[in-house]
Amino acid sequence: MSEKIKLLETFENQYPDRDYLIIHSFPEFTSVCPKTGYPDFAELVLEYIPLKLCVELKSLKLYYFAYRNDGIFYESVTNKILDDLVEVCKPKYMKLTANFNVRGGISSKIVVEYSSK
Amino acid sequence: MSEKIKLLETFENQYPDRDYLIIHSFPEFTSVCPKTGYPDFAELVLEYIPLKLCVELKSLKLYYFAYRNDGIFYESVTNKILDDLVEVCKPKYMKLTANFNVRGGISSKIVVEYSSK
Amino acid sequence: MSEKIKLLETFENQYPDRDYLIIHSFPEFTSVCPKTGYPDFAELVLEYIPLKLCVELKSLKLYYFAYRNDGIFYESVTNKILDDLVEVCKPKYMKLTANFNVRGGISSKIVVEYSSK
Amino acid sequence: MSEKIKLLETFENQYPDRDYLIIHSFPEFTSVCPKTGYPDFAELVLEYIPLKLCVELKSLKLYYFAYRNDGIFYESVTNKILDDLVEVCKPKYMKLTANFNVRGGISSKIVVEYSSK
Amino acid sequence: MSEKIKLLETFENQYPDRDYLIIHSFPEFTSVCPKTGYPDFAELVLEYIPLKLCVELKSLKLYYFAYRNDGIFYESVTNKILDDLVEVCKPKYMKLTANFNVRGGISSKIVVEYSSK
Amino acid sequence: MSEKIKLLETFENQYPDRDYLIIHSFPEFTSVCPKTGYPDFAELVLEYIPLKLCVELKSLKLYYFAYRNDGIFYESVTNKILDDLVEVCKPKYMKLTANFNVRGGISSKIVVEYSSK
Amino acid sequence: MSEKIKLLETFENQYPDRDYLIIHSFPEFTSVCPKTGYPDFAELVLEYIPLKLCVELKSLKLYYFAYRNDGIFYESVTNKILDDLVEVCKPKYMKLTANFNVRGGISSKIVVEYSSK
Amino acid sequence: MSEKIKLLETFENQYPDRDYLIIHSFPEFTSVCPKTGYPDFAELVLEYIPLKLCVELKSLKLYYFAYRNDGIFYESVTNKILDDLVEVCKPKYMKLTANFNVRGGISSKIVVEYSSK
Amino acid sequence: MSEKIKLLETFENQYPDRDYLIIHSFPEFTSVCPKTGYPDFAELVLEYIPLKLCVELKSLKLYYFAYRNDGIFYESVTNKILDDLVEVCKPKYMKLTANFNVRGGISSKIVVEYSSK
Amino acid sequence: MSEKIKLLETFENQYPDRDYLIIHSFPEFTSVCPKTGYPDFAELVLEYIPLKLCVELKSLKLYYFAYRNDGIFYESVTNKILDDLVEVCKPKYMKLTANFNVRGGISSKIVVEYSSK
Repeated sequence: MSEKIKLLETFENQYPDRDYLIIHSFPEFTSVCPKTGYPDFAELVLEYIPLKLCVELKSLKLYYFAYRNDGIFYESVTNKILDDLVEVCKPKYMKLTANFNVRGGISSKIVVEYSSK
Repeated sequence: MSEKIKLLETFENQYPDRDYLIIHSFPEFTSVCPKTGYPDFAELVLEYIPLKLCVELKSLKLYYFAYRNDGIFYESVTNKILDDLVEVCKPKYMKLTANFNVRGGISSKIVVEYSSK
Repeated sequence: MSEKIKLLETFENQYPDRDYLIIHSFPEFTSVCPKTGYPDFAELVLEYIPLKLCVELKSLKLYYFAYRNDGIFYESVTNKILDDLVEVCKPKYMKLTANFNVRGGISSKIVVEYSSK
Repeated sequence: MSEKIKLLETFENQYPDRDYLIIHSFPEFTSVCPKTGYPDFAELVLEYIPLKLCVELKSLKLYYFAYRNDGIFYESVTNKILDDLVEVCKPKYMKLTANFNVRGGISSKIVVEYSSK
Repeated sequence: MSEKIKLLETFENQYPDRDYLIIHSFPEFTSVCPKTGYPDFAELVLEYIPLKLCVELKSLKLYYFAYRNDGIFYESVTNKILDDLVEVCKPKYMKLTANFNVRGGISSKIVVEYSSK
Repeated sequence: MSEKIKLLETFENQYPDRDYLIIHSFPEFTSVCPKTGYPDFAELVLEYIPLKLCVELKSLKLYYFAYRNDGIFYESVTNKILDDLVEVCKPKYMKLTANFNVRGGISSKIVVEYSSK
Repeated sequence: MSEKIKLLETFENQYPDRDYLIIHSFPEFTSVCPKTGYPDFAELVLEYIPLKLCVELKSLKLYYFAYRNDGIFYESVTNKILDDLVEVCKPKYMKLTANFNVRGGISSKIVVEYSSK
Repeated sequence: MSEKIKLLETFENQYPDRDYLIIHSFPEFTSVCPKTGYPDFAELVLEYIPLKLCVELKSLKLYYFAYRNDGIFYESVTNKILDDLVEVCKPKYMKLTANFNVRGGISSKIVVEYSSK
Repeated sequence: MSEKIKLLETFENQYPDRDYLIIHSFPEFTSVCPKTGYPDFAELVLEYIPLKLCVELKSLKLYYFAYRNDGIFYESVTNKILDDLVEVCKPKYMKLTANFNVRGGISSKIVVEYSSK
Repeated sequence: MSEKIKLLETFENQYPDRDYLIIHSFPEFTSVCPKTGYPDFAELVLEYIPLKLCVELKSLKLYYFAYRNDGIFYESVTNKILDDLVEVCKPKYMKLTANFNVRGGISSKIVVEYSSK
């Protein structure tokens, strides 16, 4: 799975002197449940305050696509994606919210945050 | 009723060094009113910050199912479920919100919280 | 299951000379899946044009409650309830719509109709 | 109850040569359940095509208010109001829809129509 | 009031050989209640199939504005506006729906239609 | 009006050592405007943190019903109900929100709070 | 314009010892744009904590009506109304929010606050 | 692709003498665009009137899952699924509606129907 | 403007023996008002039953983009687009609905249809 | 691009002694993606507390229009517009939120703030 991070590209933040918020919502995330082998679906909401680098949008989409046939748990995939994005972007602040569809009558949300310093 | 807690299973939190939030919403909770014998219905929203353990989702569903034919009041069932989940998961923080359907023209919500000190 | 029909009571239609429509919506129907043993949930919408008899509301509620711990399939329970209500009310027209909650990612609706003559 | 109809006033339809539709929605209807003595609440939607007469709005409101402390069943009150309005307005077509609030988990709608031959 | 119609302008329909539908919704109509002197508010929805002429939009707006301080009843103003628009546009079909805001707890809708021939 | 408070009943809070929130929403409150004699309608939302006592739900409903034919102003009825509930329940915290329906084009909300000590 | 304030009436606050919030929403405010002469429309939401005096509702409605044919800008009318209401009611706290309809593709909101002392 | 149809299972219709409607909604369909290689997402709504056979729900889910990594166009996949379901169920009537998510600013819906005889 | 039609591409309908419906919704159409020079915005909904040819989606998007800086009236642009699409696709049936954003307080919808035969 | 700022006009704040909030929402912003040449669409929400100057609404509209055929990235255009508006209005506080439509399955929001001193 360590290969996925290479898909992420960045571009230089043109306004590094100002703290501002960037939010990218992706309602089409899908991976596979490692227990049942059935697909999972989630909306991913990424919020961050950039320092020197911004995530390039198309590379973010391709990075998300790369999980399509991976077997991985809710809590793990959400933490893993935040870790990758923090490593690549080195933001001042970053938060990832994953809203997973109903399974067994229960819908789940995982909220993970990172703060520099 | 003390038997129900045995239904709850946990798994090890893979990211114990980071505080993050897990939310499980269950719109199909049902028990029985101890006064009238009629069914009650509620949506249960469980939010928690794990320490070493996470609640296993299927066991949570089976635990909720176990109240189906129990006669128990709104305030009691909400507090009881929080107590069981805190005992099993030992979380940093946990909150349970129960939204009960209209009865006699009144809909009720009970909000219970736990914080490890 | 044939005992349930005895729970249904009727009262005399006070306006038998006019065709009019009566609709009762019940969002709290629950029975049990005969395969998995897990609970099913549905909203039942009953629409009918009475002839001589109307369904008494409280008895309808008790009749619906009686399915709580029965194992029965979507298609069967919807047809069975319509049959019972038609037998007891002998309406000019009757329609039952059952909207079942998501199971395995799929939500289902069954629509059954009866017309006298 | 026969006194209530005297509250209804009409005014002359200024466009008797054209068929057109008038709809008055009233979300604040309340009467009393004759069984339990508890209040019932409904939204009444009146639709009609006038011939010579239109219902005066303020008198309609006062007529609806007059049911506030009457004990009367859903089916009866809906048919009764339609009868009174037909008698006073003599419309080409009239329809009354009453949406009653949830009682015992069931919400009800009664739809009654009149057509001048 | 007969002066208002002069405000309405038309332009030539460029597709007279095809029946098609034009709908203009105006949520900001206001006039004055002739009984109370208080303002009335309505959303006007105009639908028509043109023959040779289409209503010019800005002139329609000015025409609607012209009722701002007129005292006129719901039923009259809706019929009057349809009459004016039919006279000026000579459409194949025209329909005007006026949704008036709540007054005395009652909201009202008037629906008036015209068909050529 | 001082008689109404006798309708309110309480039961013992089973979890007195934990601060938790109870919310009861009642969309069917109605009283009478003392000026016009016309009915008023409101949704009442009661939120409180209990100490030793909880409000019994059926008694709360009957207490609310008791205002049905009383002439009383928005501000007064909201403060009066809070006072009665505080006197009977002696809660740690209590808040009452009353959302009144549109009258004369204006809808009103009154928010009243109580905090012990 | 200084005459409008005389329309506002007050009544004595019956619960002066308790801080509580009163909110009046009025979706039917209309004045005239001083530049174009075209009507403007807004929803006004007034929130305040009374000291000795409350605004009388009918007088508030008449006061709002008085702007119907005045030419006045968004920012001015919102500040002016707050000033008048503060002068008449002398509240502990008051806030006025005006949501103006779309003009030239832009919808506008003005939020003005007052705090005693 | 012809192998997928073997995943579909049926069970015997218990009410073959009555025409009734069965609707299964599946918001989690995903396949792959044959041009770009990027994933497509759709909600599939299946409606049918059974004759002798009903589609078994779990097998339907597995059949839908089987398209996850297939490259296939909107129009083709919708027609293909209907063909397979008709062949296996031999219904009186069947309709499949596929609502595809936005691609290039355009969202698409394909509606395909089958009628026996 | 006649050049735009060359942007439209088609592909062969793979299911020519079955009548089925294709719907493409595009919420980002923009052109320019020929009177004011200001931009117009609309949602275009295209519905058609293909015969031998289907519209290729990317070419449809580019065709819509081509109107970005054209000055053209609501009624004209809707009819023109339908004409172009009919000429290129030669469908059995086609309908175009254009929902234009509010201008001068009025929002407009144009509905144009074509039927072969 | 530096020419655009000249389009912005201001008028004198009539209430400079009071801090109040002005919000202008514009759902029709469009520019061009510098990579693909395809149009981008966003809703811009501008919030500010004025000091001596307010933005004139029509000039704001024309300023926004001026980006119609510019190729510029999400993050740049949002920061650039805030910079221009701050330079022209010299507000106490200003915030610009840009909600961009879905591209490649991802919708984006950029939030930029300015505070004087």
